[in-house]
Amino acid sequence: MYINEYKAVIDNYLEEYFKGKDGFNKLIYEAESYSLNIGGKRIRPILILLGYNSYKKDYKKALDIACAMEMIHTYSLIHDDLPCMDDDDLRRGKKTNHKVFGENMAVLAGDALLNEAMILIMKSSLENGDNFLKAGLNIAKASGADGMIGGQVVDILSEGKNISIEELKYMHEKKTGALIKASIVSGAIMGGASKEELYKWEKYGENLGLAFQIKDDILDVVGNEQKLGKRIHVDEEKNKTNYISKYGLEKCKEMCRNLTEECIEILKSLNKNTELLEELTINLLKREY
Amino acid sequence: MYINEYKAVIDNYLEEYFKGKDGFNKLIYEAESYSLNIGGKRIRPILILLGYNSYKKDYKKALDIACAMEMIHTYSLIHDDLPCMDDDDLRRGKKTNHKVFGENMAVLAGDALLNEAMILIMKSSLENGDNFLKAGLNIAKASGADGMIGGQVVDILSEGKNISIEELKYMHEKKTGALIKASIVSGAIMGGASKEELYKWEKYGENLGLAFQIKDDILDVVGNEQKLGKRIHVDEEKNKTNYISKYGLEKCKEMCRNLTEECIEILKSLNKNTELLEELTINLLKREY
Repeated sequence: MYINEYKAVIDNYLEEYFKGKDGFNKLIYEAESYSLNIGGKRIRPILILLGYNSYKKDYKKALDIACAMEMIHTYSLIHDDLPCMDDDDLRRGKKTNHKVFGENMAVLAGDALLNEAMILIMKSSLENGDNFLKAGLNIAKASGADGMIGGQVVDILSEGKNISIEELKYMHEKKTGALIKASIVSGAIMGGASKEELYKWEKYGENLGLAFQIKDDILDVVGNEQKLGKRIHVDEEKNKTNYISKYGLEKCKEMCRNLTEECIEILKSLNKNTELLEELTINLLKREY
Repeated sequence: MYINEYKAVIDNYLEEYFKGKDGFNKLIYEAESYSLNIGGKRIRPILILLGYNSYKKDYKKALDIACAMEMIHTYSLIHDDLPCMDDDDLRRGKKTNHKVFGENMAVLAGDALLNEAMILIMKSSLENGDNFLKAGLNIAKASGADGMIGGQVVDILSEGKNISIEELKYMHEKKTGALIKASIVSGAIMGGASKEELYKWEKYGENLGLAFQIKDDILDVVGNEQKLGKRIHVDEEKNKTNYISKYGLEKCKEMCRNLTEECIEILKSLNKNTELLEELTINLLKREY
């Protein structure tokens, strides 16, 4: 299978997920479905499937939890875009959730997606055993107050302030890095990785998450608004500290390259068939959106 | 143990839960903790512990999931109070979360509490096995788009409209009833209830949830604002259909009494030590807040 085929499987799963749902509450499924299906690179669920496939041949058992991860990512974007948060009208070139469904429904759609992710994780764990539940717990921790949400909090608190390197690192590690790391690690846990292997997956995930965030910062400066589907120079406008403002553009590009190289080395050291993960890693470095 | 002792155990658990948490993201724990600890009858977690205790002697193993349920309930209140939802300044006589921490932090505190609940459920399931995970799944379904959130959606959509009895029933069954039913049923599942017994617990939970909601509607008309810690006549002001507007006050009081009686009968038919549950059921009928 190619990476695009994994993406197609995930796209299809998410497109079908709420179809046929009816009832007085139907609008919530429409709101959830809207944001789940306005595009997205599906990096996190692909990482889960590829991590799992490093150990098991068939990806299908891991698909529920992979898509649960995308639901968590999507809920965080919906809430992030709210007027009381980043107040964004566009996401991936389309209207943000609250612009289509109203603020109250957007809050609930986010809540419902997080909740649905947890339903999927628990269902899948009941079917597939404790490794899946351990992976689920790993995901839940990464998305919570000590993970992604913690990063959001620091992001909000840091607006208009010149924050320390430590705070910047914390913010990025948590806000974007936590879910990326949890994706690859969870896939490996579901697949039955050993403790030693998990250390390597964790290090790979950390580097990849950091490279991903620095690349985001780079794109916020030199990216193309149309390709990105969102405004650029946002951090500058909001006077937010980021990697560019701390280290400058050239240094950031170099950091990104070095982290990517380190990722490839770790993958090779695992002695698994990680060809697709190598491809994905390099794609993320080169991406324009 | 008396009901008040159960409540004290839960209060204590929730008071201690975020203590000592530190870091750049500290504010999120303060916001979560604030709403968790501004009072509350703790009915849902008490129901879980009492349901569990109908089968097992020690309540301690069930405490994590019981308190996870209270976190879910609390998150729903925080989001419900937001300006874009019910826009309430007071909850239990205290400032609502967004009035203290700001709207953005209140959104995140709600998210974080739902997320934390799921962490607790998964952790506890890894320690205590599949019955706990099944109970957790039951809770997650009850709090999701097909449960509590679904009820909220219909509640929002019904504002200013004269809705049908079916819609009103749906709204109440889901918005309040779902978590109450899931509490008692989950406690019984964790305790190892048989399928036949679960049918009874489900019926008990449905009746109790409905009686609870009708009583809420009654208190919204004849309650004491100070005892309730919130404004009354809210449904009237918002032109919302509720049980009172559909059936009138006297009929509602009668329905409440009948449902309570039915609850007691079901409890007796289970042939367990359900004395405390009977007491709790009657207290809920008589409550003034």
